[in-house]
Amino acid sequence: MSSLEEGDPKLRGTRAPSRMQGQAARSTEESTHEAKKPFQQVIDVSTGDSHRAGMKPVSFVRQVLAACVYPELLDENNLPLDARQRAHKLLGACTGGSVGSYSATAYGIPYVCKSVAEFIMKRDGGVRSNPEDIIFAPGSTKTLLMVLHLMASGEGEHCTAVLTPMPCPHTLPMLLDMAGLILVPYQLMEDRGGAVDLEELHRALETTRGRCSPRAIYISNPGNPTGHVQDRKSIEDVIRFAATEGLVLLADEVYQDSVYGQGKEFLSYKRVLFEMGKEYSETVELISFHSLSSGCMGECGLRGGYMEAVNLDQAVLKYLRGLQASSSPPVFPQLALEVMVNPPKPEDPSYKTYSQEILHSLTTLSQNAHRACEFLNDLPGMKCQPAWGGVFIFPRMHLPHQMVEEAKVLGVKADVLYCQMLLEEEGVRLGAGCENGQEDPNYHIRLCVLAPPDTLEEMLARLQAFHLRLLERFP
Amino acid sequence: MSSLEEGDPKLRGTRAPSRMQGQAARSTEESTHEAKKPFQQVIDVSTGDSHRAGMKPVSFVRQVLAACVYPELLDENNLPLDARQRAHKLLGACTGGSVGSYSATAYGIPYVCKSVAEFIMKRDGGVRSNPEDIIFAPGSTKTLLMVLHLMASGEGEHCTAVLTPMPCPHTLPMLLDMAGLILVPYQLMEDRGGAVDLEELHRALETTRGRCSPRAIYISNPGNPTGHVQDRKSIEDVIRFAATEGLVLLADEVYQDSVYGQGKEFLSYKRVLFEMGKEYSETVELISFHSLSSGCMGECGLRGGYMEAVNLDQAVLKYLRGLQASSSPPVFPQLALEVMVNPPKPEDPSYKTYSQEILHSLTTLSQNAHRACEFLNDLPGMKCQPAWGGVFIFPRMHLPHQMVEEAKVLGVKADVLYCQMLLEEEGVRLGAGCENGQEDPNYHIRLCVLAPPDTLEEMLARLQAFHLRLLERFP
Ligand SMILES: Cc1ncc(COP(=O)(O)O)c(C=O)c1O
Ligand SMILES: Cc1ncc(COP(=O)(O)O)c(C=O)c1O
Repeated sequence: MSSLEEGDPKLRGTRAPSRMQGQAARSTEESTHEAKKPFQQVIDVSTGDSHRAGMKPVSFVRQVLAACVYPELLDENNLPLDARQRAHKLLGACTGGSVGSYSATAYGIPYVCKSVAEFIMKRDGGVRSNPEDIIFAPGSTKTLLMVLHLMASGEGEHCTAVLTPMPCPHTLPMLLDMAGLILVPYQLMEDRGGAVDLEELHRALETTRGRCSPRAIYISNPGNPTGHVQDRKSIEDVIRFAATEGLVLLADEVYQDSVYGQGKEFLSYKRVLFEMGKEYSETVELISFHSLSSGCMGECGLRGGYMEAVNLDQAVLKYLRGLQASSSPPVFPQLALEVMVNPPKPEDPSYKTYSQEILHSLTTLSQNAHRACEFLNDLPGMKCQPAWGGVFIFPRMHLPHQMVEEAKVLGVKADVLYCQMLLEEEGVRLGAGCENGQEDPNYHIRLCVLAPPDTLEEMLARLQAFHLRLLERFP
Repeated sequence: MSSLEEGDPKLRGTRAPSRMQGQAARSTEESTHEAKKPFQQVIDVSTGDSHRAGMKPVSFVRQVLAACVYPELLDENNLPLDARQRAHKLLGACTGGSVGSYSATAYGIPYVCKSVAEFIMKRDGGVRSNPEDIIFAPGSTKTLLMVLHLMASGEGEHCTAVLTPMPCPHTLPMLLDMAGLILVPYQLMEDRGGAVDLEELHRALETTRGRCSPRAIYISNPGNPTGHVQDRKSIEDVIRFAATEGLVLLADEVYQDSVYGQGKEFLSYKRVLFEMGKEYSETVELISFHSLSSGCMGECGLRGGYMEAVNLDQAVLKYLRGLQASSSPPVFPQLALEVMVNPPKPEDPSYKTYSQEILHSLTTLSQNAHRACEFLNDLPGMKCQPAWGGVFIFPRMHLPHQMVEEAKVLGVKADVLYCQMLLEEEGVRLGAGCENGQEDPNYHIRLCVLAPPDTLEEMLARLQAFHLRLLERFP
């Protein structure tokens, strides 16, 4: 499917055999050749890494973490009082009162799990959340991978498959592949902004009969890379589908705090599930994912995420924890997660700065998304659906026939060639739609729009210059 | 072998089958029942987590990290100049100049790898180290697990086996088990302080014929839990053995900075390998492990470690990196590692404090080890070998026959019962020797001696009180 899925045949068994198992490696690093170029700096908007693009971290998060790592700061006035108080509290929750001590193997810091559960309950209008159902890992990618590994079993028609949206997050095909799972695509409705279509789900499921064994459906909501935000009806449809077909719901909700579309709001799968009544809330297996990396927080480098498991067998939960039994999870991102789910309150000294920063982030995101979408729609051959949430937009491109032919000769996909040329010529790194599972000739590009407006403008100007040049070259 | 190795039969297939694969979970958390006890606080010296026991972190490490996480501190005078300069430099090496950005998938921060390679070269008297051979992961346990997973293959007599010292680090049997490898024990020579014996290696290897397929030998040097430090001759013996038998050397050298025995010094396997000449240095596959968690650094909660691979096939190295391709490694522990391998120099403002702290740590370690060893040798039935490095001591215990019988009735191992009773009665948590792979009736306990001297004294006093009571109870 995506280029990430293809093993590198050069590596298979061509070297002298080693005593170690010389299994094939997969290179995920693209070559950049950034030397001696007509641009000063590469602008990379291919991933959701907004700090890389120049967005600022949330001060309160960093202040608390600084005091946790260097407790001498607790007694000084550089940091706001509530940041120091929080740090003090968090250190009290760490083993040995230090970020330098192991946290409980496989469980992490109970206090943090409790905070997360309270956050979820408040978010979901009181639907109960159990700290024991929260599992922490270094990044939501890791939590998802744990679940995928757990589900993997069988060969041939018994091989576990996961219904996967097309387009999907660009990392997902690789994760499914690493876990040995079969990706069964269901198309999102591009003309409805990336909505899930029930008939399409049934069609996709039909394709699995006698071929593989579907066990789960993955949903990214708010959608990466579509920017779609599901409404209640759409979520109910998916839940009913999962219930009828006996599928586990894997709800990737890392962009829950990044909804900006007019009149749109985030509804969690869990909330909707519980509001559908016991028939569903007591039976449907649901795992929801959240992350430090996402949206306004943007703390990708810290690597922290959690999943909440609903209706999972206790033995399964225990097994999931067991996957981490070799090593306790890092303390630092757990503390950051606690701050994320439990931000300053209106009466706290840091509240004003905190809310201004979040508002600024969301406003930037929203304005950038509109701006980029309009701008791209003015470029010949581009068609961008408006986005309502998340940090990506995913415009469709009509690529000149000659360029598609040239790509074929070069042995690359045409959208990959487009992105490579753009990077070489203008120093802009976008994601090629094929990485999100889009097949030729349904070409797309993926852009993260959470970046400082200046950077966005610069990026759009470079993209425009390149795009227009390209159309001249291939008229 | 150890209690960690035994799956929990309660979990196997007794619950209603779930759509998820309900594989057996393994509980690694012991029950503590610490409520309403005749002690104020539990003293836990069962692991190498010295911060938990009350040791202080190295200030310079924490100062640099605080400034990295909250760069506003770069311009203030709370932190020493060189700490701020280092933070500035490290941030410059981070993608996007922020700890909030992903570092390169599977590679981490190239600057950190370079620093590590330079540290190794200096340590090893100039033997070349290649930054490309350094692989970072969240904890050396993870790096080791990656290697073990890589080696796992085959069934029956083709199943990969690892020669494993007895006693071994208490986490190792679980790691081998998780990776599906067979543990082939070789006894360390207790009467020689835990030395490796060449004849014993040959004997152990003999036991594998027709039973499994040995591919590697694991060594912990300085030894966990023995405290033994190998000399050049001993390392050469092991290297020659590995070369002749075609085994990969897995050298766990996380305690390389914690050697305190009179006249003892740390020699790395790599250095000795290279000083043995090309016949060895160009052929023997060696992987060496180091960690933030170890010894004077003691930053267990940050989760950072690296391995250096020598003579590994490039495809194998690539595959090892590929295991991390799903997710980039956390930035924060990489920065801490850089500080660990590149501490302040004599001309730097922080040098004095830094060297005092390290010296204090090492002195504490050394004095505690002597003190604890002498103290324990005075207790009836205890016999403790002097330790020269690492953070553990591992005294042998003669347990009263009646107690051994009682343990049998209770269905636990006698050393586990000893540790449980000690925890319940005196609030001291030690490690039971069976976790380190010691079989009945060869009973041992494992104690981390890197703790504040007061804590050590308190712990010894409680242990003594318990031990003498026990001997009265079971005369
Ligand atoms: C759909 C989706 N899931 C998860 C993540 C975050 O992954 P992690 O927490 O591993 O950084 C992202 C980040 O971009 C994402 O877009
Ligand atoms: C032999 C050995 N290896 C590795 C480690 C450290 O593991 P990690 O880096 O995963 O914390 C320890 C820590 O106690 C150890 O004793």
